[in-house]
Amino acid sequence: MSTHHLVPTVWHNVLGSMPVALRIESGDTVLTQTLDAIGDDKDGISRAHGPNPMNGPVYIEGAEPGDSLRVEILEMRPIRERGWTRAALAGNVVDPERVRSLPPRDRTEWLIDAEAGTVRLESPPPLLDYLSLPFEPMIGCFGVAPSLGQAFSTATSAENGGNMDYRGFGPGTTAWFPVFVEGALFFLGDCHAVQGDGEIVGTGVETPMEVTVRLSVEKFRRHNWPRGETSDEIFTVGNARPLDQALQHATTEMLDWLTADYGLDATGASHLMGQAIRYRVGNVFDPAYTMVASLEKRFLPPRQG
Amino acid sequence: MSTHHLVPTVWHNVLGSMPVALRIESGDTVLTQTLDAIGDDKDGISRAHGPNPMNGPVYIEGAEPGDSLRVEILEMRPIRERGWTRAALAGNVVDPERVRSLPPRDRTEWLIDAEAGTVRLESPPPLLDYLSLPFEPMIGCFGVAPSLGQAFSTATSAENGGNMDYRGFGPGTTAWFPVFVEGALFFLGDCHAVQGDGEIVGTGVETPMEVTVRLSVEKFRRHNWPRGETSDEIFTVGNARPLDQALQHATTEMLDWLTADYGLDATGASHLMGQAIRYRVGNVFDPAYTMVASLEKRFLPPRQG
Amino acid sequence: MSTHHLVPTVWHNVLGSMPVALRIESGDTVLTQTLDAIGDDKDGISRAHGPNPMNGPVYIEGAEPGDSLRVEILEMRPIRERGWTRAALAGNVVDPERVRSLPPRDRTEWLIDAEAGTVRLESPPPLLDYLSLPFEPMIGCFGVAPSLGQAFSTATSAENGGNMDYRGFGPGTTAWFPVFVEGALFFLGDCHAVQGDGEIVGTGVETPMEVTVRLSVEKFRRHNWPRGETSDEIFTVGNARPLDQALQHATTEMLDWLTADYGLDATGASHLMGQAIRYRVGNVFDPAYTMVASLEKRFLPPRQG
Amino acid sequence: MSTHHLVPTVWHNVLGSMPVALRIESGDTVLTQTLDAIGDDKDGISRAHGPNPMNGPVYIEGAEPGDSLRVEILEMRPIRERGWTRAALAGNVVDPERVRSLPPRDRTEWLIDAEAGTVRLESPPPLLDYLSLPFEPMIGCFGVAPSLGQAFSTATSAENGGNMDYRGFGPGTTAWFPVFVEGALFFLGDCHAVQGDGEIVGTGVETPMEVTVRLSVEKFRRHNWPRGETSDEIFTVGNARPLDQALQHATTEMLDWLTADYGLDATGASHLMGQAIRYRVGNVFDPAYTMVASLEKRFLPPRQG
Repeated sequence: MSTHHLVPTVWHNVLGSMPVALRIESGDTVLTQTLDAIGDDKDGISRAHGPNPMNGPVYIEGAEPGDSLRVEILEMRPIRERGWTRAALAGNVVDPERVRSLPPRDRTEWLIDAEAGTVRLESPPPLLDYLSLPFEPMIGCFGVAPSLGQAFSTATSAENGGNMDYRGFGPGTTAWFPVFVEGALFFLGDCHAVQGDGEIVGTGVETPMEVTVRLSVEKFRRHNWPRGETSDEIFTVGNARPLDQALQHATTEMLDWLTADYGLDATGASHLMGQAIRYRVGNVFDPAYTMVASLEKRFLPPRQG
Repeated sequence: MSTHHLVPTVWHNVLGSMPVALRIESGDTVLTQTLDAIGDDKDGISRAHGPNPMNGPVYIEGAEPGDSLRVEILEMRPIRERGWTRAALAGNVVDPERVRSLPPRDRTEWLIDAEAGTVRLESPPPLLDYLSLPFEPMIGCFGVAPSLGQAFSTATSAENGGNMDYRGFGPGTTAWFPVFVEGALFFLGDCHAVQGDGEIVGTGVETPMEVTVRLSVEKFRRHNWPRGETSDEIFTVGNARPLDQALQHATTEMLDWLTADYGLDATGASHLMGQAIRYRVGNVFDPAYTMVASLEKRFLPPRQG
Repeated sequence: MSTHHLVPTVWHNVLGSMPVALRIESGDTVLTQTLDAIGDDKDGISRAHGPNPMNGPVYIEGAEPGDSLRVEILEMRPIRERGWTRAALAGNVVDPERVRSLPPRDRTEWLIDAEAGTVRLESPPPLLDYLSLPFEPMIGCFGVAPSLGQAFSTATSAENGGNMDYRGFGPGTTAWFPVFVEGALFFLGDCHAVQGDGEIVGTGVETPMEVTVRLSVEKFRRHNWPRGETSDEIFTVGNARPLDQALQHATTEMLDWLTADYGLDATGASHLMGQAIRYRVGNVFDPAYTMVASLEKRFLPPRQG
Repeated sequence: MSTHHLVPTVWHNVLGSMPVALRIESGDTVLTQTLDAIGDDKDGISRAHGPNPMNGPVYIEGAEPGDSLRVEILEMRPIRERGWTRAALAGNVVDPERVRSLPPRDRTEWLIDAEAGTVRLESPPPLLDYLSLPFEPMIGCFGVAPSLGQAFSTATSAENGGNMDYRGFGPGTTAWFPVFVEGALFFLGDCHAVQGDGEIVGTGVETPMEVTVRLSVEKFRRHNWPRGETSDEIFTVGNARPLDQALQHATTEMLDWLTADYGLDATGASHLMGQAIRYRVGNVFDPAYTMVASLEKRFLPPRQG
């Protein structure tokens, strides 16, 4: 179980079958520094262009279609004291006639203090000078290469992950992605110091980070959509528009999980999900929206097999 | 500020301009016992028919179109030891081709122990015999008469509230509804002992409750969609399909609230909402879906005026 | 089979169980003059307010829940030489960020010449002075009272019809509505001299008309959504958002029709629909959108029974 | 202006930046034989796998990002007497609870007689033995490589075209695609002998064809979505879910076209579109749905410049 430093020289704006940047064994750890969403590095120097340039891909030995790639997010450390956001709600998250009066989508600077655990506007308007948000780092965009030779923009998301912008993808969370190609081809980038649900201004607080993940192949663990786990819950992810359909994917994936791994039949799973499920909203800015379905572990039966 | 016991003799399957059941002063308290979603009372006797028969309407003196009706949910006490649910995920919350293999939507019994704070299946399948959910009472359907002489089924929801099935509408929460007709005409019913997000089996644990609410008119406090407040957050509610549109309504309503009452301009509100908003899913089973947008009070500026 | 002149003294902004304006026998004909969408009459005098004030309701003797009301649109005669539209695409029919640059939604006057069969802008901008559209009269809003004591705004549509704004509802077309209340309670109004699909500026060419319809009860002919027939096709109507769901309703209703009345099983109906169905778009401006599914009669098997 | 015979040896299941199969001058004609949707050729021999294997890509000299590729569909000739369909409505086009009772999606054979101009079931169920549909050939899937190195499955569609399944893409129609990469990289396949709107059984009558197209570069003619023209109309295409969003794209694209090429301002374009637009439904089976917006040429102002 070795640790690899992935120092990219090229970045990718798609998740697809791109030339391998790093080849590792299952269970190895990768440490890498990301660019921000438009390709600026920790010193503010432009190294790539947007959307969301990705580090990778990482080839994990032994990964084959039908397997699952487990991604443990071990650590996220900000490497720039500044992040930025857009200054207006996106047109697609307000009532259509209200778009006429939205303000400009200017770039706005924020200050990140990981020691103090705070994220603050650099030049707050008077009424917001009090505002101090907690530093809650998350990975906006990560995932694996899709099937069939497809390659998806890092502005969107699908079965293979991508730009899901779910707050829950932070340190301590484990994610699983279905493997569609040999080696899985894992990509990572687009970190946020903090972000509201939905990424409704089109950005979180965009900033480069040093991210450490452990990547492991789970053989023959076929699933259709990304999954995740924290200390107290399990969750599934659906990516699609409208949100209704993203919710259908996440719900169906949870049904699959409960019946395959926890021994419930569809009726038992329905009882549990019906009275205990929680939904959370990932990205509602991008071409595909993201809905998360979660269950607290305290309500789950013991895992089978 | 007196307390009224509302003992219905008729129940309504719409929220509309129905004959007044009780007339009160603004600030008065109303205590009433609801039926369950199909009209059975605390003794299991059928007193009305579904969907979701409502107690009311309550006419609040002084309420006029353009005002807001504040509804403080003071107490919810279960008055039957049994509730019921449906036993299968609804067809509209899973991937369409998966509907073919969903189990039957049988009625299933649950036992409610408010003392112990638990809700349990009466005859759990073996693997779910451990399952004990917390008693988390909530009002599934409440609201006021809509405008223009409209009358909406209690199976759905709109600007005037209705069957939102949001878990957050429990004791300690305050809700506000826009007033569309003289007297506001408040309705209430369809309580749940516990419910997962989305009401994805088509029910929570359906049971009659004794509910106590305080109803107050806030003059000239015009708003478009239901709002709410708990000890630590404020929230807005959008009801529509698809969820994308419900989210647009809730988001726009929060933008309105922040700019009207908290002194922010659209840019300041965008900063706050963009990095701090939380979305929660109410009903995704009924004709209109429900999305809630919330902000923690600790992130809000002081309220103006 | 007599003919009744319905001369309204009140108009309704909902389809619901309102006081009966006229009581007729099944098979009788009704002739009535409508107001325009904001309530102006043939002389431009305001007689009621919008949205879409309705003539009616007409009580048809013998109509009971579970029956169908057949509405033959016999004649539509314009009774004002002027109509009006809005001058800008609605915010919900263009890409959200494009709403920022839409022009104002000003009222614009049109001249209707039924003799010549033309509809023209009164003061066309230079490049549109050539534009002469055909006079293609249609009923924007008609239908029956919904179930359960519900009452729906004439700005929207549902199982009971309403503001569907489908171009096909013109002279020569027969429509059927499911009957939900005794007497059916038929309403009619909101006529257009011409209209594009979708009513995407929020109006057709709005103008009062003299409309003649024959209303007949078809006993025990239960259906769920409006249906229609012209000389060469049959069609079904779904009203909902998103359009995907309206399409599901219209498609399911056609499946029902083919299996119930034409003797096809679900496989045969699938073959026919799959390779021959045509979809058309009604309203995409209002709270519920309208999708029409049609089949040419030349492809249909002989009607059974 | 020469004619090229494109005889593929490999086929592609994505539209992307794949190795060039043929390099031509702008204005040249290409004649090629397609496989059917699952990769069977004119003799029923499996030559590739689904979904929708594509011939191409064709590199057109001089095509650069920001240009438009004009595709004139000159001829479509069936080269197999048999086609096939699926035997059941797709789960996503009927009301969700109705999916439970849909029949199996069996493969069904059809006979194509291009001379007689008919398409008939090989073994019709008794009540459908009369059914003879007109031979109306169309290209289900065609388009160009997308931007950024993306590659999209031929099961879906986007700005670059793809699996739109619009009946209007037959002989005599001209299509335009935005050029995103050098050479445009044109793909073509998935022909249908006839198809209903929406491709609601998941197929048209799938069959190989010999297709002749003329491909020409229009320099600096930037547009965002596919466009088309027939003898009597112009049209635009939006590909997305829900249909509401596909409609927004198609409507916005038509607004762009009218203002850029026909000299109308947004108000004039709104008048014309509002009262004369027609919408048609392409695919509603695939991940992205397709909506077409069209205007009859007789209503258009003279083209500028």
